[in-house]
Amino acid sequence: MVEQRAETGGSPRRVSRRSMLAGAAAAGVVVPAVATGITAAAAPEPAVRAAAATRRITMYAEELSGGLVGYGLAPGQATVPGPILEIWEGDTLEIDLVNNTDKRLSIHPHGVDYSTDSDGSPFNASFNEPGQRRVYQWRTKAPYKAANGRWVPGSAGYWHYHDHAMDGEHGTEGIRRGLYGALIVRRRGDLLPDKQFTVVFNDMTINNKVAPEVPLLEARHGERVEFVAIGHFNQLHTFHLHAHRWADNRTGYLTSAEDTTRVVDTRDLNPGDSFGFQVIAGEGVGPGAWMYHCHVQFHSDGGMAGVFLVRNSDGSMPEGAQDALDRYYQHHGGHGGH
Amino acid sequence: MVEQRAETGGSPRRVSRRSMLAGAAAAGVVVPAVATGITAAAAPEPAVRAAAATRRITMYAEELSGGLVGYGLAPGQATVPGPILEIWEGDTLEIDLVNNTDKRLSIHPHGVDYSTDSDGSPFNASFNEPGQRRVYQWRTKAPYKAANGRWVPGSAGYWHYHDHAMDGEHGTEGIRRGLYGALIVRRRGDLLPDKQFTVVFNDMTINNKVAPEVPLLEARHGERVEFVAIGHFNQLHTFHLHAHRWADNRTGYLTSAEDTTRVVDTRDLNPGDSFGFQVIAGEGVGPGAWMYHCHVQFHSDGGMAGVFLVRNSDGSMPEGAQDALDRYYQHHGGHGGH
Amino acid sequence: MVEQRAETGGSPRRVSRRSMLAGAAAAGVVVPAVATGITAAAAPEPAVRAAAATRRITMYAEELSGGLVGYGLAPGQATVPGPILEIWEGDTLEIDLVNNTDKRLSIHPHGVDYSTDSDGSPFNASFNEPGQRRVYQWRTKAPYKAANGRWVPGSAGYWHYHDHAMDGEHGTEGIRRGLYGALIVRRRGDLLPDKQFTVVFNDMTINNKVAPEVPLLEARHGERVEFVAIGHFNQLHTFHLHAHRWADNRTGYLTSAEDTTRVVDTRDLNPGDSFGFQVIAGEGVGPGAWMYHCHVQFHSDGGMAGVFLVRNSDGSMPEGAQDALDRYYQHHGGHGGH
Repeated sequence: MVEQRAETGGSPRRVSRRSMLAGAAAAGVVVPAVATGITAAAAPEPAVRAAAATRRITMYAEELSGGLVGYGLAPGQATVPGPILEIWEGDTLEIDLVNNTDKRLSIHPHGVDYSTDSDGSPFNASFNEPGQRRVYQWRTKAPYKAANGRWVPGSAGYWHYHDHAMDGEHGTEGIRRGLYGALIVRRRGDLLPDKQFTVVFNDMTINNKVAPEVPLLEARHGERVEFVAIGHFNQLHTFHLHAHRWADNRTGYLTSAEDTTRVVDTRDLNPGDSFGFQVIAGEGVGPGAWMYHCHVQFHSDGGMAGVFLVRNSDGSMPEGAQDALDRYYQHHGGHGGH
Repeated sequence: MVEQRAETGGSPRRVSRRSMLAGAAAAGVVVPAVATGITAAAAPEPAVRAAAATRRITMYAEELSGGLVGYGLAPGQATVPGPILEIWEGDTLEIDLVNNTDKRLSIHPHGVDYSTDSDGSPFNASFNEPGQRRVYQWRTKAPYKAANGRWVPGSAGYWHYHDHAMDGEHGTEGIRRGLYGALIVRRRGDLLPDKQFTVVFNDMTINNKVAPEVPLLEARHGERVEFVAIGHFNQLHTFHLHAHRWADNRTGYLTSAEDTTRVVDTRDLNPGDSFGFQVIAGEGVGPGAWMYHCHVQFHSDGGMAGVFLVRNSDGSMPEGAQDALDRYYQHHGGHGGH
Repeated sequence: MVEQRAETGGSPRRVSRRSMLAGAAAAGVVVPAVATGITAAAAPEPAVRAAAATRRITMYAEELSGGLVGYGLAPGQATVPGPILEIWEGDTLEIDLVNNTDKRLSIHPHGVDYSTDSDGSPFNASFNEPGQRRVYQWRTKAPYKAANGRWVPGSAGYWHYHDHAMDGEHGTEGIRRGLYGALIVRRRGDLLPDKQFTVVFNDMTINNKVAPEVPLLEARHGERVEFVAIGHFNQLHTFHLHAHRWADNRTGYLTSAEDTTRVVDTRDLNPGDSFGFQVIAGEGVGPGAWMYHCHVQFHSDGGMAGVFLVRNSDGSMPEGAQDALDRYYQHHGGHGGH
């Protein structure tokens, strides 16, 4: 079941990449022993939970055109944002990072456990010199009740990773140029999506693009679509998605009718913060071309606005959607590249 | 019971308007068949819940003095912010919008379900040309359990509506000039307020005013007062109300002593975001003149500060309150218009 | 048990101060009758809860070097931030504020109940002229069920206090110069920390310092450490702590495995907002030197970054930690004052 989960990159021109849960093999990194276990574990309610797995992947930091720098799962496959890294609570992820740029850089995660030597900070001497390989270990845990009765939170969450070392102590230059990506730690029983999108509000861009070059996010009517939204850099941002809503909690969905969590369609997305949610594409509103944008007015006017295209369930274009896309590309003076 | 709920405009000089739940007739829009059903439904625990109602209202966008533009429920009654639109989960609201200005504009809602042709965006060709009428349909639903066991969130929330088409793709000019208002979708059983206030932090203003012109919010000691707070434009804002607190969840109140929701008296209020809550005026602190303001210092110093006047329960002025008001008007160099 | 709770100031050079719960005597303010009651009440599960206590303390506002102004619990002991004021739900705190500066100032609390004459605002004529003493009364309450079945929230929370009167209506000058501090109202049963830190993001500083002068926060591996984070002034801020996480709710911790509260390691910290949480120092990650910083990039690069030093459980320095500290001081061009 997991195998059929397609994953969509953050850009219409991006090559497809596969989630970590589904196995990284398709992205060119062969980790068969691990991928097998992971795939089995991805079933919503497995009969048996194997002991926590340790997965090891290799990531490559590379320079891209336009001054960008990205992370990728194989040489020549770096993207901005980097690949979605996705593991189960209890798993350990070891990242063998290869720095193929001529600058010092690192990878720093949010939300997971790591020792100081995997901190990704120059402060802890945890970085890659140009050309250097270095292993960063990220550990996770399920929630548990400690001896004194308190609950220790699990690692599950919509987290992110980013550089923390290029040209400074805080990775400002690396983040500016695209060294960031989504990190999802799932709890057993969490609903799994059909599609996933990473949306990063970085300075005045979405995924280092402005309209009409920002990602065209596509799904079919009725698909379960997961968004991971990440904020970066210096500016105030608020993420808004038209015609879809989610719960402002860990998972983005509710567990009962009595749940008083606020349901939202707009949420602050400020530097270093992240959140995620799942929506059923077009649920209650139908297929069509729906905007997602920063709701800070001079940001949306300045190009922090993209399209979530919900196709008909058979994959065809809904009535009016092509016209909407044409207007979008025309307004932003770009090609109608779709 | 609903009939006795007074509603107070966002400005001391504003004419009274009535909530949608209580029927729009008093505001000049006669919808008797619908209003009857709505009024019955507004009782906290009705014995019988009629099928979801469809209500149709006419709204008018009009130019006001000082370069403002507002929405109103009848010609000549436009206000900034526009009227509070209030419906029950399950209801459908059809808004026949009349554009009495000489600019393209629209109405775009947060939180509810709508098809692309009611999106309010130029992108979806959903707007009113000058002089044009156009119907926008907003649908809502109660939470329900889907076939796969997941909970689909209901529409209940403290939402808002605004222009999305004037002078651009995102309604920046319409929002700047006052085309916005509160939209409340209630869940059966939600507590109903005695009074309601809409407070919009729009650029460096409250409801497009600066002190001492910002709304004087008045209630009597012990009244249940509902605030709907909306953020707009480009700036960081934090809403603070003196001497009153609320829960940072969907309703603004708690359902048990064990509820760990954060209780707050200050909350971020950034562009496109909204929240609402109810307080008992003066509860635990007594009547008096209490400030509400943006807690960003140069915003409050710049005039984003107003007064929540909690009168004695008999309507008389509490000791010291007139002095406080006098100081407020004197400090801000304005008339003591109250 | 309370007596053994050490409390650590916000600065490496600050003298130790003791929490209000543990009794203010150690800070030079002798309130024996009250302190006894408070100390008893501080036990996690007291057999008998005495009636709500009224505590009275004297605070002194004083000018400090470098243009700072602080609050203190005894003459000559003012600090920036001021002392942590900590009470139990139900208690009343009376603050006899002595203004030893030559400017008008006040003390305004968040989260608690107060009458207009304790509002701390010039608007309500609630301030101290230079040299003046004035009593401010802050009341609190446990949650209770009102006659109509609704729950009235208790006062528990990670709140704060600040000037609201110096050189203006909103205390901007007082806040700019350091007149602020943490106010904790605890609910019976709340977990008590071993150590406490107040971290205030005020303009472009942490506690009115920039690196390397920002507070070095020290704890031992396994200690329960409480952070109270407060935002002030004009800027957008996001608080990030490396390698530790907390729940984004009232207490900062979860009450069950099913709790869907978002667990975070980064949170917006904007003007007037505050939050608190407890972490077990080094839990799951080990001792070491961990950064805490504003995640707005130009803020962290500009010096809004400090060190949370988690020592070994015997108090010795963990491997690599001194090197990290040396790098921190060297990078920021400061002395290695530790």
